[in-house]
Amino acid sequence: MTSHATLSFTSDNVAPVAREVLAAIERANAGTVHSYGEDPVTERLQAVAREAFGTELLVYPVATGTAANALSLACLAPPHGAVYCHEQAHVNSDECGAPEFYTAGAKLIGLPSPDGKLAASQLAAPLAHAQEMGVHHVEPAAVSLSQATEWGTVYTPAEVSAVATVAHGAGLGLHMDGARLANALAHLGCSPAEGTWQAGVDVLSFGGTKNGALAAEAVIFFAPERARAFERRRKRAGQLWSKQRYLSAQLLALLEDGLWLRHARHANTLAAQLAAGLVHAGLQLAQLVQANEVFAHFPAPLSASLRARGFEFYDWPAPAGTAVPLVRLVTRYDQQPEQVEALLDAIRSA
Amino acid sequence: MTSHATLSFTSDNVAPVAREVLAAIERANAGTVHSYGEDPVTERLQAVAREAFGTELLVYPVATGTAANALSLACLAPPHGAVYCHEQAHVNSDECGAPEFYTAGAKLIGLPSPDGKLAASQLAAPLAHAQEMGVHHVEPAAVSLSQATEWGTVYTPAEVSAVATVAHGAGLGLHMDGARLANALAHLGCSPAEGTWQAGVDVLSFGGTKNGALAAEAVIFFAPERARAFERRRKRAGQLWSKQRYLSAQLLALLEDGLWLRHARHANTLAAQLAAGLVHAGLQLAQLVQANEVFAHFPAPLSASLRARGFEFYDWPAPAGTAVPLVRLVTRYDQQPEQVEALLDAIRSA
Amino acid sequence: MTSHATLSFTSDNVAPVAREVLAAIERANAGTVHSYGEDPVTERLQAVAREAFGTELLVYPVATGTAANALSLACLAPPHGAVYCHEQAHVNSDECGAPEFYTAGAKLIGLPSPDGKLAASQLAAPLAHAQEMGVHHVEPAAVSLSQATEWGTVYTPAEVSAVATVAHGAGLGLHMDGARLANALAHLGCSPAEGTWQAGVDVLSFGGTKNGALAAEAVIFFAPERARAFERRRKRAGQLWSKQRYLSAQLLALLEDGLWLRHARHANTLAAQLAAGLVHAGLQLAQLVQANEVFAHFPAPLSASLRARGFEFYDWPAPAGTAVPLVRLVTRYDQQPEQVEALLDAIRSA
Amino acid sequence: MTSHATLSFTSDNVAPVAREVLAAIERANAGTVHSYGEDPVTERLQAVAREAFGTELLVYPVATGTAANALSLACLAPPHGAVYCHEQAHVNSDECGAPEFYTAGAKLIGLPSPDGKLAASQLAAPLAHAQEMGVHHVEPAAVSLSQATEWGTVYTPAEVSAVATVAHGAGLGLHMDGARLANALAHLGCSPAEGTWQAGVDVLSFGGTKNGALAAEAVIFFAPERARAFERRRKRAGQLWSKQRYLSAQLLALLEDGLWLRHARHANTLAAQLAAGLVHAGLQLAQLVQANEVFAHFPAPLSASLRARGFEFYDWPAPAGTAVPLVRLVTRYDQQPEQVEALLDAIRSA
Repeated sequence: MTSHATLSFTSDNVAPVAREVLAAIERANAGTVHSYGEDPVTERLQAVAREAFGTELLVYPVATGTAANALSLACLAPPHGAVYCHEQAHVNSDECGAPEFYTAGAKLIGLPSPDGKLAASQLAAPLAHAQEMGVHHVEPAAVSLSQATEWGTVYTPAEVSAVATVAHGAGLGLHMDGARLANALAHLGCSPAEGTWQAGVDVLSFGGTKNGALAAEAVIFFAPERARAFERRRKRAGQLWSKQRYLSAQLLALLEDGLWLRHARHANTLAAQLAAGLVHAGLQLAQLVQANEVFAHFPAPLSASLRARGFEFYDWPAPAGTAVPLVRLVTRYDQQPEQVEALLDAIRSA
Repeated sequence: MTSHATLSFTSDNVAPVAREVLAAIERANAGTVHSYGEDPVTERLQAVAREAFGTELLVYPVATGTAANALSLACLAPPHGAVYCHEQAHVNSDECGAPEFYTAGAKLIGLPSPDGKLAASQLAAPLAHAQEMGVHHVEPAAVSLSQATEWGTVYTPAEVSAVATVAHGAGLGLHMDGARLANALAHLGCSPAEGTWQAGVDVLSFGGTKNGALAAEAVIFFAPERARAFERRRKRAGQLWSKQRYLSAQLLALLEDGLWLRHARHANTLAAQLAAGLVHAGLQLAQLVQANEVFAHFPAPLSASLRARGFEFYDWPAPAGTAVPLVRLVTRYDQQPEQVEALLDAIRSA
Repeated sequence: MTSHATLSFTSDNVAPVAREVLAAIERANAGTVHSYGEDPVTERLQAVAREAFGTELLVYPVATGTAANALSLACLAPPHGAVYCHEQAHVNSDECGAPEFYTAGAKLIGLPSPDGKLAASQLAAPLAHAQEMGVHHVEPAAVSLSQATEWGTVYTPAEVSAVATVAHGAGLGLHMDGARLANALAHLGCSPAEGTWQAGVDVLSFGGTKNGALAAEAVIFFAPERARAFERRRKRAGQLWSKQRYLSAQLLALLEDGLWLRHARHANTLAAQLAAGLVHAGLQLAQLVQANEVFAHFPAPLSASLRARGFEFYDWPAPAGTAVPLVRLVTRYDQQPEQVEALLDAIRSA
Repeated sequence: MTSHATLSFTSDNVAPVAREVLAAIERANAGTVHSYGEDPVTERLQAVAREAFGTELLVYPVATGTAANALSLACLAPPHGAVYCHEQAHVNSDECGAPEFYTAGAKLIGLPSPDGKLAASQLAAPLAHAQEMGVHHVEPAAVSLSQATEWGTVYTPAEVSAVATVAHGAGLGLHMDGARLANALAHLGCSPAEGTWQAGVDVLSFGGTKNGALAAEAVIFFAPERARAFERRRKRAGQLWSKQRYLSAQLLALLEDGLWLRHARHANTLAAQLAAGLVHAGLQLAQLVQANEVFAHFPAPLSASLRARGFEFYDWPAPAGTAVPLVRLVTRYDQQPEQVEALLDAIRSA
């Protein structure tokens, strides 16, 4: 079950923990501290997150992205609420119903688009329909955007802001699933503030695990009044660590000197290198490569040949009418250009 | 918010991570592995747990005890089910309704006793009442025992077995909240098998965090057919780690060469030392000291004096009619006899 | 399975529908009307309920008392909330976890007392405990009182008011389960206003079915801001009737000319007659008889003899230490003094 | 808010109660009977339903179609389950999330088709995707078909059977939302058995309210082992009536001498008359008219003119790219050909 580090392009979560993160865990491992977040590491995380985002906020560390997303949505949507998202959003497709569980049955309404991005203009019709239907329909409560998207594309701040305007105008909260927020910001070159709260995000799932942490994400409330019930919801979900300093230390290590953005830039650069090489080799990309994911059409014999040499990557469900099969290749903070080159060499020789 | 390690007796979860556990995390931190538990560390955990308990089982690591308990109970009780437990059990009193959340609303029926232990004989009346009431009452589904109990007392295997006989006879599953199972086994001197499945336990919450882990517990199914829905429930709860090797490594470090039992014996010995010293100093114990918790009656001026010197411990709700206030003192794997002696010195001089 | 009407004392819900109620259903059965409550009968119910209670309110008809209670509590308590009630309250003991279902897992905390009444003074300790425990404990959210109680006793307005003062002072809402509110008011001789909102009740389950309706209860919000989510919760629970006029008509028939109070007075009078007869016959009452329920100690041979003659009534769980078995006898709007006398005759001759 | 009976074509639920149904309620209103379904009317309903469907079954009356559907699905799908249905199915669009509520968060996966019918061939891809995704995806648990559909079209027994074959082959249960089953059977001319269990339906929501009842539907289990948890789920949902005889009496009145099918044939005939008239008047139908619903394209001025004369009907969301607005016209058991003719006259003169 162990992959060869040099040959896996399956996901960012096959990576080990960054040495800076492990070092931070070790530094936190001195003496006793109060449990459940009443510790100095968590206190410092609060300050550092405020600085990184340039605003007042509340930051709550949890261990998984699914927990961060589901808790966020539970603070925005009542059980009889509707959450609008892209139909292939992680919250809708890959979390085994976690948002439904945490919200006590709210409905995720998935809207389609070819590039994984939800456009502000897609919201008008479903919001009008809900209005028309009254109590027979779930109540519009939130919009959730994935940044970067499941297709490796990135919303511009203007696009996020357009969605926020529609959402807020109709009384809905705006959640951002930022499991790969760092990759999106690295692509955009904008500040964390510009990419999130200044564009209208109310609650953010801030990703760490895919970006070098052991297991650390955070729910960040830019609209703290939305957090009222968060702490009990987190406890009740078994997501409140007694030894929270070890969660907070991981996030601190990523945030404190910009490591999170350096990691993301590195992974993005490798993805760009890979995409350019694929195109040069005559293969077709399925999506713009803006973060650390490459979606490309690989003829079946090519995939087979690469896998025979030990390379690992996922086949991906292709849109109807696609002739050549689709694959997903993910690059990571811990990879080197040589590993990308090795894959490209294998492709060229196949 | 940092405590002085030498002065805190508040809880076992203020302790740092044991160096063996951290070392295991570092050892696991090499190269890429498949995510979500398809890794060699988790595979090895399965084998080591089987060996430790001397039977076939399924072991699922999660990060918190609340998650372990709530997932366990959700596999035993339907939404319309009843779970019988001690009225002060952690699942009933200290988890902000996590079992109700994970089971989708099952009812915990707390039964009283002075020493924190649920006796088999206490089950007959509520089971008969449920039978009598039919569909108007929740359906008896599970019994949950805490080992050691919230009062630091320990069930004998015979006591567990007596409860199991009643539970199984009525078609209920038996869950054990083993957040402090190691302390209980260290007290009993029996094997893990004798203390659990041989006594009738179907599902066990196996504690690691209070015993030297960073954040690691496990749900262990001795009745694997009960686990059918476990994996999706875990995912849906945001409790499935992508980098699961780091959870499994912690549990392996505790289990592999008996570290978990050595830690527990050490903490128990300190508790016994503390209890003996308190009695010698003329103070009254409220409960038998069988694990690593000491409940004692401290006159208010004594508590105030100790706290003024920096010692930390909790006041504890006392049974009605108690004249002298009650406190809880917890000993830990990382403490030394000198620290206990320092507390006793302070008491004697107060 | 049919009982002899003359011989059943099991419950008020074995009774048929009052002829006035059936007549009202028939009157409502003319032509088409808009569905889902946009009908003139429901509009009139709103006005008549306002008049009966002498205040602004929102009234929502539903078909069962369990639905009324569970919807009420779901509007007062979040999933991580606590609802304080008598330990034998219908919501806690006889609804198969409906409040837990509708609230998505809130915790009912049952408090004991010998007469079925929750005293204001019983709330201080659990509220302080919750405060102390913080996020580890469910959040105090509501108090629920049953009027009349499960033991046939009745709160005075002053008693309700004392509970309301504590509840509101701690930020909790006050729910009243008024399945037998009419019987309580008939006993108290006070106005509906005095017995409910003037005493601090925020949300009322108003009972109709036990008092002559076919299937009709109502949730009445005296604090309309608490009703914000009610309409979607009702729909989502399958409790919104398309042909709502037939629900509303039943409640109108009861409310319009005081039929509900006449029915209740009648049933109460029969209970008083029964109680007096039992005492005269040397039997012991277990509770004050204030509404339409009589709890009495019947030696087993007496119960057997009565049942052999066709009389029907329930054995009732007796408090620990009770020597003579306990039975419950319920009187109804549709019974006559002769039927009570027949039972007393049978008792005297047994 | 009262409609003129002669002018409303909005829905089958604006109709009054059929006189046979009211008469049956009155007949049931004699004396006391045991509550909660232990009554002779309910016993007889069980026998009559068995006879009507020609097989062993369990029939459970409830008051609303939403309750029948949600309870049915909760017996088929776990909280981590997936229910496949047409994207416009009532369970997915018009019940404010009732299935999500009753199942504790299962996911409804809506599949599109122009005529409201789910084809067996549409299930392969989503089932394969779920298989591929493993624990990250909800677990396929049930398929729900609406008969007749939201678009007034009707599945043939062969079409139902094809879906059942795929569903059962993958371990899923098959639910039929038969709110308008009578209309579908009247169209098909097949027996209730042929249209339901012989075609593979496991659980049926049997509609009564739209077909002349006051408020009465039933959940019918053809696979009684699926019903294990039904009774407690019904109680817990506040859907168990204490005076159940009045629910059962309504269903008996419809079933006993074929009244349900006569009503449906009548409404279907009126719909056919209406459809023919519309076509003759040069208007375009949007769907085949197979039951009692007519979807037609009405130019906006036509709708306005009809409404000015008092006619009532709903605008309906039209598929993208539709030039002429869509309306829905529903015919009912209590209408007469003259009323349809009056509408057609108004159309012709507009």
